[in-house]
Amino acid sequence: MQETIIDKDTRLLVVSAHAGDFIWRSGGTIAKYIKHGAQVSLVILSYGARGESNDLWNDLNQTMENVKKIRRQEIEEATKQLGVTDYEIWDLQDYHMSVTDQDKERMLRKIREVQPHVILTHGPKDAFNPDHELVSNFVFEASVLSTSNGVRLEDTKRSKQSSIFGFEPHQAEISDFKPEVIIDITETYEQKVAAMNCFKAQKHLIDYYSAKALIRGNQARRCSGNNEYQYAEAFTRFFPYVGGTFN
Amino acid sequence: MQETIIDKDTRLLVVSAHAGDFIWRSGGTIAKYIKHGAQVSLVILSYGARGESNDLWNDLNQTMENVKKIRRQEIEEATKQLGVTDYEIWDLQDYHMSVTDQDKERMLRKIREVQPHVILTHGPKDAFNPDHELVSNFVFEASVLSTSNGVRLEDTKRSKQSSIFGFEPHQAEISDFKPEVIIDITETYEQKVAAMNCFKAQKHLIDYYSAKALIRGNQARRCSGNNEYQYAEAFTRFFPYVGGTFN
Amino acid sequence: MQETIIDKDTRLLVVSAHAGDFIWRSGGTIAKYIKHGAQVSLVILSYGARGESNDLWNDLNQTMENVKKIRRQEIEEATKQLGVTDYEIWDLQDYHMSVTDQDKERMLRKIREVQPHVILTHGPKDAFNPDHELVSNFVFEASVLSTSNGVRLEDTKRSKQSSIFGFEPHQAEISDFKPEVIIDITETYEQKVAAMNCFKAQKHLIDYYSAKALIRGNQARRCSGNNEYQYAEAFTRFFPYVGGTFN
Amino acid sequence: MQETIIDKDTRLLVVSAHAGDFIWRSGGTIAKYIKHGAQVSLVILSYGARGESNDLWNDLNQTMENVKKIRRQEIEEATKQLGVTDYEIWDLQDYHMSVTDQDKERMLRKIREVQPHVILTHGPKDAFNPDHELVSNFVFEASVLSTSNGVRLEDTKRSKQSSIFGFEPHQAEISDFKPEVIIDITETYEQKVAAMNCFKAQKHLIDYYSAKALIRGNQARRCSGNNEYQYAEAFTRFFPYVGGTFN
Amino acid sequence: MQETIIDKDTRLLVVSAHAGDFIWRSGGTIAKYIKHGAQVSLVILSYGARGESNDLWNDLNQTMENVKKIRRQEIEEATKQLGVTDYEIWDLQDYHMSVTDQDKERMLRKIREVQPHVILTHGPKDAFNPDHELVSNFVFEASVLSTSNGVRLEDTKRSKQSSIFGFEPHQAEISDFKPEVIIDITETYEQKVAAMNCFKAQKHLIDYYSAKALIRGNQARRCSGNNEYQYAEAFTRFFPYVGGTFN
Amino acid sequence: MQETIIDKDTRLLVVSAHAGDFIWRSGGTIAKYIKHGAQVSLVILSYGARGESNDLWNDLNQTMENVKKIRRQEIEEATKQLGVTDYEIWDLQDYHMSVTDQDKERMLRKIREVQPHVILTHGPKDAFNPDHELVSNFVFEASVLSTSNGVRLEDTKRSKQSSIFGFEPHQAEISDFKPEVIIDITETYEQKVAAMNCFKAQKHLIDYYSAKALIRGNQARRCSGNNEYQYAEAFTRFFPYVGGTFN
Repeated sequence: MQETIIDKDTRLLVVSAHAGDFIWRSGGTIAKYIKHGAQVSLVILSYGARGESNDLWNDLNQTMENVKKIRRQEIEEATKQLGVTDYEIWDLQDYHMSVTDQDKERMLRKIREVQPHVILTHGPKDAFNPDHELVSNFVFEASVLSTSNGVRLEDTKRSKQSSIFGFEPHQAEISDFKPEVIIDITETYEQKVAAMNCFKAQKHLIDYYSAKALIRGNQARRCSGNNEYQYAEAFTRFFPYVGGTFN
Repeated sequence: MQETIIDKDTRLLVVSAHAGDFIWRSGGTIAKYIKHGAQVSLVILSYGARGESNDLWNDLNQTMENVKKIRRQEIEEATKQLGVTDYEIWDLQDYHMSVTDQDKERMLRKIREVQPHVILTHGPKDAFNPDHELVSNFVFEASVLSTSNGVRLEDTKRSKQSSIFGFEPHQAEISDFKPEVIIDITETYEQKVAAMNCFKAQKHLIDYYSAKALIRGNQARRCSGNNEYQYAEAFTRFFPYVGGTFN
Repeated sequence: MQETIIDKDTRLLVVSAHAGDFIWRSGGTIAKYIKHGAQVSLVILSYGARGESNDLWNDLNQTMENVKKIRRQEIEEATKQLGVTDYEIWDLQDYHMSVTDQDKERMLRKIREVQPHVILTHGPKDAFNPDHELVSNFVFEASVLSTSNGVRLEDTKRSKQSSIFGFEPHQAEISDFKPEVIIDITETYEQKVAAMNCFKAQKHLIDYYSAKALIRGNQARRCSGNNEYQYAEAFTRFFPYVGGTFN
Repeated sequence: MQETIIDKDTRLLVVSAHAGDFIWRSGGTIAKYIKHGAQVSLVILSYGARGESNDLWNDLNQTMENVKKIRRQEIEEATKQLGVTDYEIWDLQDYHMSVTDQDKERMLRKIREVQPHVILTHGPKDAFNPDHELVSNFVFEASVLSTSNGVRLEDTKRSKQSSIFGFEPHQAEISDFKPEVIIDITETYEQKVAAMNCFKAQKHLIDYYSAKALIRGNQARRCSGNNEYQYAEAFTRFFPYVGGTFN
Repeated sequence: MQETIIDKDTRLLVVSAHAGDFIWRSGGTIAKYIKHGAQVSLVILSYGARGESNDLWNDLNQTMENVKKIRRQEIEEATKQLGVTDYEIWDLQDYHMSVTDQDKERMLRKIREVQPHVILTHGPKDAFNPDHELVSNFVFEASVLSTSNGVRLEDTKRSKQSSIFGFEPHQAEISDFKPEVIIDITETYEQKVAAMNCFKAQKHLIDYYSAKALIRGNQARRCSGNNEYQYAEAFTRFFPYVGGTFN
Repeated sequence: MQETIIDKDTRLLVVSAHAGDFIWRSGGTIAKYIKHGAQVSLVILSYGARGESNDLWNDLNQTMENVKKIRRQEIEEATKQLGVTDYEIWDLQDYHMSVTDQDKERMLRKIREVQPHVILTHGPKDAFNPDHELVSNFVFEASVLSTSNGVRLEDTKRSKQSSIFGFEPHQAEISDFKPEVIIDITETYEQKVAAMNCFKAQKHLIDYYSAKALIRGNQARRCSGNNEYQYAEAFTRFFPYVGGTFN
């Protein structure tokens, strides 16, 4: 049996609530898609300045402007490690994040422009992060509306329904996360580590997601019998797999 | 993106509790695997003589022997329609079915002999059919034991963990069935209909599973945006998909 | 045992998010209630012009005004087929639908005016239709508030808590739908078909919901042993059945 | 709207794992069915001598024979209070209970003999009582087999599928119990109390199930708006309600 | 083994959607914490004037102002019975309750001011009370934001993540409530009864929550084997217990 | 607030299906209980010779006797590292494990002898290990029967209901495991590592459970705000926590 192939006609859209989410949760997978020639578009909705920059705010003179500047540099370096060139930062507020009608239209427009086969974003529940839940719903609804002929938007054309996959949240079990899809990232694991290291202040997260990659790799071996899998990332599916064969 | 390919190296093992289950629940998929050259092995555990032959028993002079004979002929004809040549009937009692240690060893041996990539059998819950639940567990456990080096059995060698997929039960929702995998059977749907028609006495089931195929086909289109899908069969997964790419 | 009887004192309120929902999901049941003399009030919240009129928008010169006109005619014809005379169209926007405080008061007022024994509307989850989820919540909350003495609204009086039943969504299992109540529609099935045929452009939905009616009819026979059931519609309950006897 | 009516053609079969279960969990409902003329058959599978007679065994000289004798007297008195005349005690061992093939045939025969519209027995899960779970499965499977023509048993004829309702277990929430059906027992509540008082040694249970009846009565009022409901018993359903109307 | 100790360094924050919730659902626990010297802060978000004052509105000349006055007196008396001195009433509208950004900041500020070890509030689901669900989410999110350094708010300092426990809703099972934590309130049960009696018009609720306390007490004995437990209150956990030992 | 204390009156019973389970899943917790003076009794039901000794069987001349010998030595060394002196090995067959009536009586007797406050064993579901599920049920049922006066067994006296906690299975999410209790093992983590290293052939498991300990430690910090937690083990609860205070 031969696997689905990633090539230059493969379009992947990644939507990340905060600066680091796309790296911790899908850095290896993104690097792999790029390595195999896929078109990867990345949307980073916020800098995570309020909710995911704890260490920076230990400096009492810290400013919002400076925090964003630091996070922007980290994003730039990390995307370089993964090979991502097509990315945009929307600079929404985080903690609480909210989305306006304009944001909704912008996401819809983005999906119709990219016409992604696969969308990667946050899954529907995250026990400790309300922003992630909002983004999950935001992206899902935009993907549904994007398929409807009657949702007219100048200069766009209706897209097919993308397959959507949800990131693993920080605390998987209490967020009701199920690893429905486990992607082998052995060949790009070093790139993921390099990208994680761009967020130097968050050493405990680097350790955490390194441990996760090892654990998911072990499970990948057990579920498949394929001993070449060493590191992996897990995702949940938004709807059933549809295709011509079992996979 | 290109799909997983079925070819002559693909090995599929199907385990059916009663005479008709493999047809109602996976006839189109089996025919497709055979059409594309896969090796398909079918185990039919019982004739379904007590629990799935209601109409035959309306004849008060009916005998067990005769019921089995009729079911055997139907199986023979139906497998012909699907192209299945490698099948065996274990002739266990049904309603209630039970399995002995010998049966367990026989299944283990079968799995190690076939070394299937994919096993198709009943899912873990069936609201109205205790036999199906027993078979689900029976096959699953055999597949787990088959991977263990320490479970020694003469003339067999350990197999890799097969992917297992569960049939759709008769009443899906109250059996907690989730259609995690929807297989397009448009190209073999006519064969499935022909195979179903070998069980002439069960017209209401032919209507039922034709309606199901249409419904799953509609859902396949909606979930994928691929309008060529007309008929489909749905399955549940026993464990996560593991692989190199999204699918 | 004798069944609950529908008569002229039976009041049924149906709330449909889009033009067609009340037909696909409850057309047979509505026709039956009317046939047996019940008072049926129907609220159609939107024309479904953006989200449920795909085929009409294939015409690039299509206008919103014209789509609504077509849908209005279809509604008129379909309600005629079912015998519904008391209906209103709120003309909310769909895809995304949202409700204002005025809409909330209007629904509350409607419930207090109709004082329905039974409310039929969308169930809490629909895997591909955010509008349906919004309507489910909207109607449920109005029904709760309508029972409270302290929620004062001129010219209305508090209603008893209505029983609420949820429509079957398009993709039942992935919307976590459970068929808790299956209503036999054999005697009005032809009317449902006639009503569905008023939406000619949506042939695939007519096929789909005809297949569903057959499947639910089969299940109705299996669950009850009553072989007169041929076609049925399934619903979920919002709260427990309360009564003097099992049913 | 008028309710389903209990009359002399209504047949109810109650299967109780231990001596007291049918009283604590369904005494009011049983009394009501009898009061309205239904045919009620009661099967008590064990005396509950080991698992539900704690107080009696505080006497160190207590014997199994004596415990059973006491429980038998209590059953006799309690059934009298409820008006039950058709009952049998199978005297299986409890804690752990197990059932043989003979027991299975006996239950099947009982169901075919009674041809019940409704079966009342234990629900599928009971957090602290493995016997209850076994009985739930035992009765359910017998009810399924009883409908099959091919399950031949001398002097019996196939029955229709009975509706099955599950008792409320002692600790409802942790047993995943959902009160899907709440039966008003206001008119027979005094009889239930009288029957409970036949088990004098278990005062804490009498208090417990009196409190439960009050709570379920309150919920019956809230869910229905019917303020005449004072006391009630809750049950779970084994499969969907099927019928001609909402209820 | 020795239990966690309540003392003067223990800080408990209780957030109640309506006037009576904190009494029905946690009155015994609050009284106990106070009795043992803990610092208890109580926030009552609304008077429950619209949704939880049915009886008062039977008087057609009733005014909102007067209802609030009566509820305020009841709160005053009830808190006295429990020993609560630190409480505040926010006077939000109920039925429907909604919260503004100002309310969110106020709650965040309250949490940072109190720095509670434990927060008691409504659990995530309440089958008949949308206000309770809103409050659950409102308090939970404030507790998460309160721990983040980047969520700057003048004159406040970041708090540790509080443990959050959810009240038992009125209809436990249909609200998916699980009694994960059962607190013995035997020593303060009389105080709870006295506090409940301050809401004289709601006799059916006093009966209801007295019955609940008895039932939870019985379960406390069964789960622990400790026969001194007579009355108890049940709560659900928002996240895992973390500690040095089993408990 | 002060924590529950472990001391010499604390009795912990650990039941492990195979040789290594108690180490991978609870080694740090066991060591901690011993370090603080608790009485820890360990029952190892099997050597895991068939199902958990894959590497040893790579030697084609391997014998069952020799595998057991090796595992026995490993157990001896590992228990030494943890400080466990009171342990017994029942030498049941594994893969499939089954238990006889004699085994059931033996476990019941063990529980009555130890009278444990806490029992640690496998949780109810393990996606890839049927033995673990069997043991979970086996121990739970024995614990229930042990509390019943009527279950007479010479030379034993009824025990109180122990609190039971379930091990984390190998693949947590697909086994529906929820980390309801997270125990800090920072002070004994080195002992756990030393014990794991007694199973040298299973390096991938040592890596796996080291990664798990780090991950659970991170979560312990996030859930509690206590930054001293570095390593932890997670467990599920069999029934609610009951006590005098929140914990």
